[in-house]
Amino acid sequence: MGEAPVGDGKGAALTRRGLLVGIGAAGGAGAMYAAMGALGLAPSAQSKEFTAPRQGDFTLRGKGSAKVVILGAGVAGLTAAYELGKAGYDCTLLEAGQRAGGRNLTLRGGDRLTELNGPAQQVTLGEGGYFNAGPARIAPWMVTLDYCRELGIPIETFVNNNAAAYVHTNGRTTRARTARADMYGYVAELLAKATDLGALDKTLTKDDRDGLLEFLRRFGDLGPKLDYEGSDRRGFTKFPALDAGTPIPAPGTLHQVLAAGTGRAITNDFGYEQATPMFQPVGGMDAIVTRLQEAVGQDRIRTGAKVTKITTLDDGVEVVHTGGSVKADYCVAALPPHLLAKIPHNLGPQISAALATPVPIAAGKIGLEYGRRWWELEDRIYGGATETDLDITHIWYPSHGYHSERGLLVGYYNTEHEAELYGALTPEDRRRRALTQGKKIHGEKYRQNVLSSVSIAWERQEHIQGGWVRWPAFDSSFTLLQRPAGRVYFAGDWLTHLIAWQAGAMESARGAVTQLHQRVLQSP
Amino acid sequence: MGEAPVGDGKGAALTRRGLLVGIGAAGGAGAMYAAMGALGLAPSAQSKEFTAPRQGDFTLRGKGSAKVVILGAGVAGLTAAYELGKAGYDCTLLEAGQRAGGRNLTLRGGDRLTELNGPAQQVTLGEGGYFNAGPARIAPWMVTLDYCRELGIPIETFVNNNAAAYVHTNGRTTRARTARADMYGYVAELLAKATDLGALDKTLTKDDRDGLLEFLRRFGDLGPKLDYEGSDRRGFTKFPALDAGTPIPAPGTLHQVLAAGTGRAITNDFGYEQATPMFQPVGGMDAIVTRLQEAVGQDRIRTGAKVTKITTLDDGVEVVHTGGSVKADYCVAALPPHLLAKIPHNLGPQISAALATPVPIAAGKIGLEYGRRWWELEDRIYGGATETDLDITHIWYPSHGYHSERGLLVGYYNTEHEAELYGALTPEDRRRRALTQGKKIHGEKYRQNVLSSVSIAWERQEHIQGGWVRWPAFDSSFTLLQRPAGRVYFAGDWLTHLIAWQAGAMESARGAVTQLHQRVLQSP
Repeated sequence: MGEAPVGDGKGAALTRRGLLVGIGAAGGAGAMYAAMGALGLAPSAQSKEFTAPRQGDFTLRGKGSAKVVILGAGVAGLTAAYELGKAGYDCTLLEAGQRAGGRNLTLRGGDRLTELNGPAQQVTLGEGGYFNAGPARIAPWMVTLDYCRELGIPIETFVNNNAAAYVHTNGRTTRARTARADMYGYVAELLAKATDLGALDKTLTKDDRDGLLEFLRRFGDLGPKLDYEGSDRRGFTKFPALDAGTPIPAPGTLHQVLAAGTGRAITNDFGYEQATPMFQPVGGMDAIVTRLQEAVGQDRIRTGAKVTKITTLDDGVEVVHTGGSVKADYCVAALPPHLLAKIPHNLGPQISAALATPVPIAAGKIGLEYGRRWWELEDRIYGGATETDLDITHIWYPSHGYHSERGLLVGYYNTEHEAELYGALTPEDRRRRALTQGKKIHGEKYRQNVLSSVSIAWERQEHIQGGWVRWPAFDSSFTLLQRPAGRVYFAGDWLTHLIAWQAGAMESARGAVTQLHQRVLQSP
Repeated sequence: MGEAPVGDGKGAALTRRGLLVGIGAAGGAGAMYAAMGALGLAPSAQSKEFTAPRQGDFTLRGKGSAKVVILGAGVAGLTAAYELGKAGYDCTLLEAGQRAGGRNLTLRGGDRLTELNGPAQQVTLGEGGYFNAGPARIAPWMVTLDYCRELGIPIETFVNNNAAAYVHTNGRTTRARTARADMYGYVAELLAKATDLGALDKTLTKDDRDGLLEFLRRFGDLGPKLDYEGSDRRGFTKFPALDAGTPIPAPGTLHQVLAAGTGRAITNDFGYEQATPMFQPVGGMDAIVTRLQEAVGQDRIRTGAKVTKITTLDDGVEVVHTGGSVKADYCVAALPPHLLAKIPHNLGPQISAALATPVPIAAGKIGLEYGRRWWELEDRIYGGATETDLDITHIWYPSHGYHSERGLLVGYYNTEHEAELYGALTPEDRRRRALTQGKKIHGEKYRQNVLSSVSIAWERQEHIQGGWVRWPAFDSSFTLLQRPAGRVYFAGDWLTHLIAWQAGAMESARGAVTQLHQRVLQSP
């Protein structure tokens, strides 16, 4: 661990540790802890910013670290091991599957994907091709990006909104830019007219009306009479060049535009989770798993070790698994709650009930590899998504490898009923159905030149059995599991308000690590 | 040149050339040209798709190519030389400056930038750092992207819209996501209320009203009573994690939101030119210049050759420049019109008048290199722009080099009056002013840790003298110059409806090349 000088770095080379040891010697432990708090070094569940455990935390107190067994080597488990490892905790991860990463799964040529009650798939993507079968995008405010920075994982933009992509609703296909221009145009016209008619005179001052009309003209690209008569924002059949171009034909009527039902699609990125821009690790999301594994130490991860019993004891915890048993001082249980709920334990009936509360949600994806990036060459779609009301929900275009020969589309990314529907099909039938649906948008080329495909039904992954979970309510069961049960801590995206995001797994792991470390430091 | 087989490639290996030579032998030139048209090979100013000249065009006709002198080695001139070169034209480019590229200028450490009536700037950006002083982004529908593909130039996303960036208007700074959520929220509420009040009953059917209200709820994130009461789309002081997070305080009143004047900023990317996503070459925009130069041949470009006279003759064209003179069969004049207008010629008074019509527009930019990417670390802004009503207009955050140590912001990118104002200052004063303005948004850190800076005033670049031009109207002067004057063809973004975009320069060059090549092929 490097020791950063205190202050602005311009003063004497007094290190934090040196300062604290000095304070500790002079004023005792109380003075030292107070100083640690002032320097932002004291770990605390209340602190807004996470402070990673560090070797110095023990050195200062003359204590040793502890032995921790972590159940599940998904993102939560790996993050917990990584952060605890910074202070020298002796961590062992038990992973039921044959690989670490959990839902962070990037498939490449040569991989083999098995499912419950279904045939295995041999992945035959071309060299350099990959399919992020689980998480695929990161919002910039998420802690996931901090880990990318800390672990030296290069990132690139994930295009989450593309004006050139399509909206397919009620059997009709429109460019997103067209759907948006029309809806905004008519909304602006309607409000401008209502304002002009005096309908809002009780609500709006003269200044408000002027400001509102100025905005609406811009927002809807309205004409001089506050009418929406179309707009070059809708796009062109021939874009401007030597001449002014050929705009696509005039918009439908207000009635037609409203009936088209494009509203959900064009507001898709309005939330704080999906807002532009988003990011992805270069080369595949599993770079996060790979780097965490390297930092934790491959030898600490026991794969093929399915947990069969958890016992918390006065002086430690005992975990039995299919390959033996582990005794440790503490346990971090970072498995999906619906799987944890099935493992015998002595943590009490309240814990059992709480673990059984969240409801697993099905989620599925298919990767379709093409020998030609026709979406770039012909549709001029570079990344982004086509939103549909079909059972495929979305089509995602790749945000990397632009202009290369091959490319991989996500042909569906659906959840709940639609995911279950596809999940119940054979891989071949999933592919056939996805291609039939996508053809409704892109025409026959969508079914041509498909080099390979691979699909996943997360509810059919043996040791995961769901895309994520939904809590009926964030109630006392949720908060109960955010605290330890005996010597067992729980972790996972399911224990946060960032469910289905890796950031949730990481935040939860940090929360468990903070509590565990504080307990170890405070133990007699 | 490769010869592609005709048809789907599955039939006999009959080449296009072989087929056409056969048709020509059997049916004469007329039949051959008709067949060429049917195969999409006949060059034509009317064809929607550009067909590059090729060696085979001459071989088929038993003709030779011609000698062409190109004035200006900017993007238009280089593109013309590149396309003509495909058919073996003997091109010479005369460039007044010391480098090719024109406004496509990427500055790096070690470069020196001179300006009219101002001190030279020594560029001291760190290794790997660059500043796209001219064009910096490409829309996916633009031909620029085709050249990137054809020339093997890797591209990456240019983030042109960032919900986490700021809007600074009327002295107040807001996150773009907040400004947008508030404006959309109130617009939705107002229209929903007007609809509810029956103000639009003449315009809307019952179905329309239902569809509209459903959209407005979603668009504005309205409450159950169709009120806008704020939304988590506005952002958080603490994003959701273990708890639901702390949303930023409630929105201002409708009056306050309208008075904030954020409308222009939040509709900034609504047009077809600026819509998300946009792209940039990896490593700097001048990759396009570098690759075009390589393809054209460095030996064909004479730098330091300022044109002083253009004479069209019956059998050719003569161009006098500061280093001598060139005789050629044709000329492509790819200089800015306001500079061309000053060069003596024999093309007639109409041409002179037309060239003097477009008005040059000032444009300026500053690059500010920081030793720390505080906008990522503290503001969580990864690329994108802060829109302001200050004289700096925009602040652009870099869309590359995420998480690296250094980073370069564009501290202003302004035009016309504001650009002239900054252009008239010394580089040191431009920097000081830009930092003072940026501090209003980002606080004192904006003025700290600035490692270097470099600014450009395009109207003060000796051989360019403007950011771009504006035509008072796209009238007969504009169309006159799209046709040759004697043996002189004109090219540049200024001859298109894509002014200020490299795509305009490229489209114009293609137009000139198509006309010139057709003339050569048809000449006796």
